[in-house]
Amino acid sequence: MEVTSKTTWRGKMKFTGTAWSGRELTMDAGAEVGGDDSAVRPMETVLIGLAGCTGMDVVSLLKKMRVEFNKLELNIRADKTEEHPHVFSRIDIEYVIHGKDIDPAKLERAIELSQDRYCSVSAMLRKHCPVNHTYRIVKP
Amino acid sequence: MEVTSKTTWRGKMKFTGTAWSGRELTMDAGAEVGGDDSAVRPMETVLIGLAGCTGMDVVSLLKKMRVEFNKLELNIRADKTEEHPHVFSRIDIEYVIHGKDIDPAKLERAIELSQDRYCSVSAMLRKHCPVNHTYRIVKP
Repeated sequence: MEVTSKTTWRGKMKFTGTAWSGRELTMDAGAEVGGDDSAVRPMETVLIGLAGCTGMDVVSLLKKMRVEFNKLELNIRADKTEEHPHVFSRIDIEYVIHGKDIDPAKLERAIELSQDRYCSVSAMLRKHCPVNHTYRIVKP
Repeated sequence: MEVTSKTTWRGKMKFTGTAWSGRELTMDAGAEVGGDDSAVRPMETVLIGLAGCTGMDVVSLLKKMRVEFNKLELNIRADKTEEHPHVFSRIDIEYVIHGKDIDPAKLERAIELSQDRYCSVSAMLRKHCPVNHTYRIVKP
């Protein structure tokens, strides 16, 4: 399947892009490299995109498994290299889920299905560096 | 260098994340998978992030080379696999630059420096699939 995106320079370091959904994403750089610090950095879009990708899988899988939860957060910690290009060399995702009756086995299964089978962003990044995960269940 | 991001579920398929800049990025899915189609998809953030990453490099390198331009657009065409996970299997970037006196050799040098040395998103994706590029100079 072919997909396209179009990204336009908006002066200084600002760029706005759209892709198949038609929704916009604006990126900027910090003042130290000539930007206005008005929007996310390109490398941040990758890490946040990874969280959104696996987060949507987990929400959808838990719904199918009839697991109820109130809150879901994905905390990512990554190592970024000092030398050019400044790539991530290791990514650790922590899934934090809040609910009073969450079955750890079902949550684990949902996370593993996402990481091993559905999450496209994770599958691509994993070719480049390790993507690890842990989870934490919080009872209200 | 350690970096972190925090992404929070906001109901249905919506997620909002922040990382080191503190700027927010909201993602959503389409109605066909239970979303509200209110924001970019996670996989779009990767493709648009790639364009922003190499676009910022090129702007910054052309500035150093004293190449003047009025407009810069990055068109990406990618193949996405039909089977799970729906990863990109090939990415083609077209840089379209507008200006009345652009030296093709300098533009080519800027693009190659970005692709071979500076662009972090490209360096990571390239481990997964080919990332090709072409350019087009438009005289006003």
